[in-house]
Amino acid sequence: MIEPATPPAEEPVRRRRGRPRKGESNAREQILAAATEEFGAHGYDATTTRSIAARAGVDPALVHHHFGTKADLFTASIDAPLRPDIAVPEILTGPPGDTGERIVAYVLGVWESPTVRPRALVLLRAGLSGAHAAPLLAGFLRRELLDKVAATLDGPDAGLRVDLVASQIAGLIVARYVLRLPDLADAPVDELITRVGATIQRYLYD
Amino acid sequence: MIEPATPPAEEPVRRRRGRPRKGESNAREQILAAATEEFGAHGYDATTTRSIAARAGVDPALVHHHFGTKADLFTASIDAPLRPDIAVPEILTGPPGDTGERIVAYVLGVWESPTVRPRALVLLRAGLSGAHAAPLLAGFLRRELLDKVAATLDGPDAGLRVDLVASQIAGLIVARYVLRLPDLADAPVDELITRVGATIQRYLYD
Repeated sequence: MIEPATPPAEEPVRRRRGRPRKGESNAREQILAAATEEFGAHGYDATTTRSIAARAGVDPALVHHHFGTKADLFTASIDAPLRPDIAVPEILTGPPGDTGERIVAYVLGVWESPTVRPRALVLLRAGLSGAHAAPLLAGFLRRELLDKVAATLDGPDAGLRVDLVASQIAGLIVARYVLRLPDLADAPVDELITRVGATIQRYLYD
Repeated sequence: MIEPATPPAEEPVRRRRGRPRKGESNAREQILAAATEEFGAHGYDATTTRSIAARAGVDPALVHHHFGTKADLFTASIDAPLRPDIAVPEILTGPPGDTGERIVAYVLGVWESPTVRPRALVLLRAGLSGAHAAPLLAGFLRRELLDKVAATLDGPDAGLRVDLVASQIAGLIVARYVLRLPDLADAPVDELITRVGATIQRYLYD
């Protein structure tokens, strides 16, 4: 049995490539928090970098300086709770026979955290609800997570295998945290790691 | 190999309990189509029965007469493309060894239909995006589909088993039709019936 990981996003939010310089970090965090709130309140399409800057109490130029476009900022907002730079090594390190359980344990470790879940829910809803946000979420998942796991697999169907893994993980999150289907929402984390982990393991290696 | 079912919702929309009387059917269809458009354009929370009536070109009293509250109308809108009254018998009839494949074939039969998919996507997005719509979607799934399948299973974990099935089906729909993960979006229906059907089969009976 794999223990759920300590939720990584309870640490201070960091820049993906290199840590921010001193003094930068606070503005970045404020902007990311404001972005999540705006995406949650108005959806991706109706949110502007200007409205995010206003909510964060900073100049719009600072938003552009730190994050580039609105699409880049949405991607950075997803990155902060998901932390693929932590997830991928954690998933790929250890016996291959436990990879399925490690993946489910990592995902539930993130989503069970009471501080991370509300933010992750907002971003998931924004990512699924708009025609423009879904490709950003999908592109992020593929680039930062799925392609890296697929690269460790043999066979011509490695891409389909990791997409099937992603489908089960996406469905687990939707059914437990969005739809809150009663028996799944009440199931102990350990039981889900065992049952869903077995599915993931088969998609990856059978 | 189970063939994908003929998409049921290409037939005229019917009332769940008994067919509508002559002359009623047209207004009901207009209202359901208008409801789907309104839920899609504004989300569940911002849609009113009044705005649906205006879009359908009917009196709001007629909407109440046919469908009751906004929540009832949302549930009826989900029912029309999903048709659990057709799905459940189709899934439960036939050898138990093929149930997993039959479930995936039915779901893909509905979602692959070019006339049904746009409507189903709108309702899925509305159902996942708002805090009020998700419990309506979850309640509908449980009442009309999951509880009926669970009643055919033995063991104290029947509820969890069907919720795990629902999680994989929800994830398949999200990953293939909303996120459009490339390898999963391009996979032939037959291959998904085999691979995902095996997962469903294990959740149900292993």
